[in-house]
Amino acid sequence: MTTLTSPPRQQVVRIARHPEGAPRADDFRLDEDVVPRPSAGELRVRVDCLSIDPYLRALLGARYLTARPPVGAVVPGTGLCTVVESGDPGFAPGDLVVGDCGWRETAALPAAAVRRVDPGLAPPTTALGVLGIPGLTAWAGLRTIARPRAGDTVLVSTAAGAVGSLAGQLARRDGARPVGIAGGPDKCRLAVTEFGYAACVDYRAKDFEAQLRATCPDGIDVYFDNVGGRVLEAAIGLLRKHARVVLCGLIDQYNAAQRPPGPNLGPVIGTRATLTGLVVYDHLDRLPDFLAEVAPGVRDGSIRWREDVRRGLAAAPQAFVDLMRGANVGKLLVRVDGTPATGRSG
Amino acid sequence: MTTLTSPPRQQVVRIARHPEGAPRADDFRLDEDVVPRPSAGELRVRVDCLSIDPYLRALLGARYLTARPPVGAVVPGTGLCTVVESGDPGFAPGDLVVGDCGWRETAALPAAAVRRVDPGLAPPTTALGVLGIPGLTAWAGLRTIARPRAGDTVLVSTAAGAVGSLAGQLARRDGARPVGIAGGPDKCRLAVTEFGYAACVDYRAKDFEAQLRATCPDGIDVYFDNVGGRVLEAAIGLLRKHARVVLCGLIDQYNAAQRPPGPNLGPVIGTRATLTGLVVYDHLDRLPDFLAEVAPGVRDGSIRWREDVRRGLAAAPQAFVDLMRGANVGKLLVRVDGTPATGRSG
Repeated sequence: MTTLTSPPRQQVVRIARHPEGAPRADDFRLDEDVVPRPSAGELRVRVDCLSIDPYLRALLGARYLTARPPVGAVVPGTGLCTVVESGDPGFAPGDLVVGDCGWRETAALPAAAVRRVDPGLAPPTTALGVLGIPGLTAWAGLRTIARPRAGDTVLVSTAAGAVGSLAGQLARRDGARPVGIAGGPDKCRLAVTEFGYAACVDYRAKDFEAQLRATCPDGIDVYFDNVGGRVLEAAIGLLRKHARVVLCGLIDQYNAAQRPPGPNLGPVIGTRATLTGLVVYDHLDRLPDFLAEVAPGVRDGSIRWREDVRRGLAAAPQAFVDLMRGANVGKLLVRVDGTPATGRSG
Repeated sequence: MTTLTSPPRQQVVRIARHPEGAPRADDFRLDEDVVPRPSAGELRVRVDCLSIDPYLRALLGARYLTARPPVGAVVPGTGLCTVVESGDPGFAPGDLVVGDCGWRETAALPAAAVRRVDPGLAPPTTALGVLGIPGLTAWAGLRTIARPRAGDTVLVSTAAGAVGSLAGQLARRDGARPVGIAGGPDKCRLAVTEFGYAACVDYRAKDFEAQLRATCPDGIDVYFDNVGGRVLEAAIGLLRKHARVVLCGLIDQYNAAQRPPGPNLGPVIGTRATLTGLVVYDHLDRLPDFLAEVAPGVRDGSIRWREDVRRGLAAAPQAFVDLMRGANVGKLLVRVDGTPATGRSG
């Protein structure tokens, strides 16, 4: 029984068990928790929109940079939040921030750990996608590692996804020929019609390797890898001399219990190629440079982006399941309060 | 029957068949051939000393940068040669050169394609080892890719070999801590006592991975890979943040019919490491810089080197067999005329 003196409660999603193989919706459970009370220097925020990201699978599988959260913990995750109450003079109620709120309705976040969102820059949810960490990932991989030159063939996996959809557009701006890889004909079509890819190959096709070779007859100068596995192997077989490979994610093996072997590296020697690991968090200090370059295009429509918005906190587990089997199209978001999704796309 | 008008003949070694798996001495056969007559711009040379190199296995397996030589062809290879007759004003009889002479007693070589050897610099056979392509390989890998810093842990495979023995010494000169990997206790001992390694781990040991971890408790900043396979996998598991890996050879798979898978690249992402393929021939223009740095040490004894010298052209096939199973100690040479080996070592 609730009495007047009971602390207010809210909905959260907890880890029911650590997933084995592909995640299932019942690896998570909806629960209640007290509404957090912010300490000094903290903000009380309403979580408007959660970002559903592949790194969560690595985190739940103890394969991520930080420690695995225990069963029973609220699912970690980033979200777009509105400040309700501020314990920091730099923030006022109504301000929009991005922070590590977790899968809950409200959160208390250290003011020092959130990123302010300028609602005049672009639709605020883009701060979780094309103008957020996924966009910065694409930008950092191309600008700090791959550095495409005019005429280069730039191959990008997850070409219709949050990272890949911007990577292709940036490569095209550099005068390169972007070639995408995506799962299924719909995403391949989207990569070409929306995101400026010169061509896009379906990795689910039986003759994927042959199609990729035919699409890149002179080989590739850059490969932006988000998946690993068979796709990475095929790309390594197409490297041109002094090619650059950005190793950014291994979605292909996030569900695997054992780390599978990787590609044979013989072609890397012969081509004098360079493979470099990218962790986007190393590049947070470049966020202003990134926004200066990309935000104007998002605002004027010359840079395209796509969101896949689900409604209600309870939809988060299935959204994550869909993400890990590639059933989303565009940046996957969960609008926590369940208001109708805008689903808008630039 | 030989008559007075028959052209003079010489011994050569031909490819009897392309090896399958580990090479065997009877993959080659001793034969006779006419003594070549040089054209204009060519030198007639006596082949003094052949360099026996692992790349030959890749070449015979059609895995090398250049086309596979057919059965019946004279085995390709580099050697230290003395000019006997010169069709080029820049060379005189008695000059020493290194060139692609093949496994034969005398050869006709284009003057433009040989490298002159200064006998005053160091013992001339070092032009095939510590002051030749193997030495340049070590130097180029460290100076152009790995760039060790003081305090770095620099891991090197084939630590007692022609490349690795110099790589460790150069890393030590840079103030780094060189750790070697070699096959068997004798080579490991040599790596430490002769070549300046702080420690050397035997990759044939059952608990190799555990020994390597214990020897590099803080991980590694640089890995110079000449072998691939299990050794590369272990090294990738020890990478520190922003580590650099030189991919220089995959001896481990030169004998394999199929290209085996490579290491899981997950740790490369997490550590933001860089893997770069090295082909030494890209760096031939740096030979003067390399010699300027390394030759004085070879001359004054502060840089150590080791040769394993076999006698007589007929010994070349078995020398190659030994090389590919790691049964040599130091740079493997075949003294073609069969005169006693100096076997000297710096």
